Amino acid sequence: MDAHISFLTDYGTADGFVAACHGVIARIAPQARVLDITHDVPPGDIRRGAALLAQTLPYLPAGVHIAVVDPGVGTARRGVLVRTRDHLLVGPDNGLLPWAADALGGPVSAHELTNHELMLPRVSATFHGRDVFAPIAAHLVIGTAAHQVGARLDPGELVRLPDPVAYVIDRTAHGEVLTVDRFGNVQTSLDTVEVGELGIIPGDTLDVRSVDGEWRVVFGTTYGDVELSELVAIVDAAGYLSIAVNGGDASALLRLGPEKQVTVTPVR
Amino acid sequence: MDAHISFLTDYGTADGFVAACHGVIARIAPQARVLDITHDVPPGDIRRGAALLAQTLPYLPAGVHIAVVDPGVGTARRGVLVRTRDHLLVGPDNGLLPWAADALGGPVSAHELTNHELMLPRVSATFHGRDVFAPIAAHLVIGTAAHQVGARLDPGELVRLPDPVAYVIDRTAHGEVLTVDRFGNVQTSLDTVEVGELGIIPGDTLDVRSVDGEWRVVFGTTYGDVELSELVAIVDAAGYLSIAVNGGDASALLRLGPEKQVTVTPVR
Amino acid sequence: MDAHISFLTDYGTADGFVAACHGVIARIAPQARVLDITHDVPPGDIRRGAALLAQTLPYLPAGVHIAVVDPGVGTARRGVLVRTRDHLLVGPDNGLLPWAADALGGPVSAHELTNHELMLPRVSATFHGRDVFAPIAAHLVIGTAAHQVGARLDPGELVRLPDPVAYVIDRTAHGEVLTVDRFGNVQTSLDTVEVGELGIIPGDTLDVRSVDGEWRVVFGTTYGDVELSELVAIVDAAGYLSIAVNGGDASALLRLGPEKQVTVTPVR
Repeated sequence: MDAHISFLTDYGTADGFVAACHGVIARIAPQARVLDITHDVPPGDIRRGAALLAQTLPYLPAGVHIAVVDPGVGTARRGVLVRTRDHLLVGPDNGLLPWAADALGGPVSAHELTNHELMLPRVSATFHGRDVFAPIAAHLVIGTAAHQVGARLDPGELVRLPDPVAYVIDRTAHGEVLTVDRFGNVQTSLDTVEVGELGIIPGDTLDVRSVDGEWRVVFGTTYGDVELSELVAIVDAAGYLSIAVNGGDASALLRLGPEKQVTVTPVR
Repeated sequence: MDAHISFLTDYGTADGFVAACHGVIARIAPQARVLDITHDVPPGDIRRGAALLAQTLPYLPAGVHIAVVDPGVGTARRGVLVRTRDHLLVGPDNGLLPWAADALGGPVSAHELTNHELMLPRVSATFHGRDVFAPIAAHLVIGTAAHQVGARLDPGELVRLPDPVAYVIDRTAHGEVLTVDRFGNVQTSLDTVEVGELGIIPGDTLDVRSVDGEWRVVFGTTYGDVELSELVAIVDAAGYLSIAVNGGDASALLRLGPEKQVTVTPVR
Repeated sequence: MDAHISFLTDYGTADGFVAACHGVIARIAPQARVLDITHDVPPGDIRRGAALLAQTLPYLPAGVHIAVVDPGVGTARRGVLVRTRDHLLVGPDNGLLPWAADALGGPVSAHELTNHELMLPRVSATFHGRDVFAPIAAHLVIGTAAHQVGARLDPGELVRLPDPVAYVIDRTAHGEVLTVDRFGNVQTSLDTVEVGELGIIPGDTLDVRSVDGEWRVVFGTTYGDVELSELVAIVDAAGYLSIAVNGGDASALLRLGPEKQVTVTPVR
C-alpha cells in the first residue's frame, strides 16, 4: 500500500506553487500518493483553512497531512509537526493545525521543524510549502521519525485560534457562521451538542436571527424537505447546524458570511 | 495495473467535499487511481453534468465512474449502478447517467444502491457522495460484484433527461446549445448526422440564428481557418457543430448559452 | 518507481478536456503518474504558460512534460518534442517550451511530432492535447524513443517568445512584469543578476516606477518585513524581484499587470 500525503493550502491552482510542492514530494517519496484537499482557501484565511482541515481529515487514510495558510512565512513564526495517534500534521504554528489535531483524537506530541537536512538545500523566505513543509512531509512518509524533524514542543504551547462562539442560554443557541460552502449553505458553529440542548426535532420551526434580519426556518434533515427556494435548517454532513435554501444560496439570501453572529430559537 | 475510478461532481474544489470522497475511496481501495473529471459543474446542473460525462468517458479506461450532481440528495430519488459492457456508473437516478451509458455502448443492467454494508456506517442525508457513492464505487473496484449493491432494475426505468432538440427540415438544422466551454466555444446539439444531412463542407457559409440575432459564419475545420476575432463553425472534438470566434469568446459575442435554440442554414 | 508526466494547459478544469487527456494517458501508460501543474493559464496566453512552466519544472522529477497553450491548433504550426538532459517536453511549437528547456539546462535535441502511429487513430483539428500530445507523451513514458516521434529539428529553429526586458543602466533597472500570482504579488523580469548589479541589500529603499505612478518600496526578504498593508520588494522564491503588499494585493494597488514596464532605482 502506498503512503498518503494530503495537502491543503491557499496557493490557488493558477500558479505553479502547488505543482512545485508535488514535484518536491515526488522526488523524495516517489511512491507517495498526494491527495489535494483544496488550494482555494482564501489568501491568508487561517480560520477557514483550520475549519476545512478539521472537517475533512477524519475521512482520510492515516498519513501525513501538509497544511499551508501562512501569511507570516519567513518571520519568527515556527514550522511544526503535530502528531496524533494515527496522523502527522505539518505546517506553520499559527493556529491552522490544532482544530484538525483535535478532530483526529488530540495531539500526542509536537516538534518544531528545524532540521535543515530534511528541507531543500536553499530555503527561500517566502515559499516554505516547497522548501520546508513538502520535503519534511515526504521524508516522514519514507520513514524519517517524528523526533528527527526538530526539538520537542509541548502541544499546549501551539498557537490556537479562538474557539468559535457556541452555547445555549434560555433555549436560545448563540453561534457564529463557521463556513459557507459552494452552494451557499451556511454552516454555523452550533453542533449536535447545542442542537441536543435545544431539544429540536425535524419538523420544528426555528427563529434564526443575525444583525441583518430574522427568519422562520423549518428544521429538517435534507434540502428537499422544503419547497424549492425555501429555507431549511439541517444538521449537515459534518455535524453542524446549517441554514440552506433548497436549490438556492442561503448565504446570499440572508447575507450570512463567516464569523457573523447568529442566534437560533425554537418556536413553540 | 491499478484500477481506475473517475469522479465528476458539482461540489467545487474550494470546500472539503471532494477530498472527503477521495479519502473514503483511499481507505477502502488504496490501490485505486482516482481521475477527477471536473467538480465545477454548476450547482445542481444535471444536464451539464450529463453532457460532460457522455463526452468524456469514452476516452477513459474501463473502470468505475462516480457522478454526483444531486439536488435531490436525501429524498426519495434512488441511487443507482448502471453497467455497460466495460464500465460501471454510480450516481443518483436523476438523469445524470443515461447519456453516458449510451455513449459507452448502452446500459447492460442496472441496480438500485441499497446494500448498507457497502456504505459508510452512518449515512448523512446530504452527502451521499461521501457516504454512499464513493464507498460503493471503491468496493466495486476491489471486487464486489454489481449484483451485491442492491436489487436489479430495468435500465429502461432509469430517469432520463429530455433529449436535446436536433433535427433537419427543409435544409435548416434546428438545435440547441448543449454546452459552452472555457473558451466561449458554443457547442450545439447538432452532430455529424445533422451536419451530414445539411450536406455542408469546409468553406461553405452558414446562416446561424437565435432569438437574439443572425450571423453569417464560415464552416471550417479549426479556429485558425478565419482571421482573429472572426466567427467560424466547426465540428468540434466531441463531434458536435460548434460556433467559435478565433481567439475570442463566441458565447459572449452571440449571447448563446446552454439550452438556447439555434437554427443553421447553408447559404448558397 | 512509476514514471511521471506533468501537464500544463489553458483548458480550465470546468470542462472535460483535461480528464480526456488523463484518460488517454491512463489507457496507454497505466502506471504513469500525472502531475497537473495548472490548467488555468488564461486562454491562449502562451507567455504566461511559458513563464509558469520554466519556473515550475526545475522542481519536478525527471520525466515527460506536456504543455498545451495552443491558439493555433490545427493550423500549420508544428507539434514538437524538445529533449533536455533529463526531461522531455511535448507541445506546440509556438514559444511555449523553450524557456522551460532553458531552465532545465537547455535543449539537447528536438523532433517534430509526425508519427501518426503514436497519436489517437482519429486526430481532430481542435484538440491536439487529447489526440496528439497526450498519447505521444504516454508512449514516451512506456519506452518509445524520442527519435520515433518524427523528424529531427534543429532546436535553434524552435519558435521563441521575445525575451522579457531586463537590464541595468545608470543604477536603474529596467524590467517588465512577468507574472502576477494569486496573492497579487507582482513578479518582475529582474532576477538576481540585475539585483546584483543594483547592489541593493535588505533594508534599502527602492524607487519603483511605472507609467501609472511612482512608489517608495522597502527591499526586504519576506512579506512580514513590513507592516500589514505596506509595500515590500523581495527576491521571490523563483529568483525574481517582486513587489508585494504584506497581507494585500500589490497588483491591484499599483495597477501592475503582465508585460507592463517598470523601473527600479535604489534611493540613497
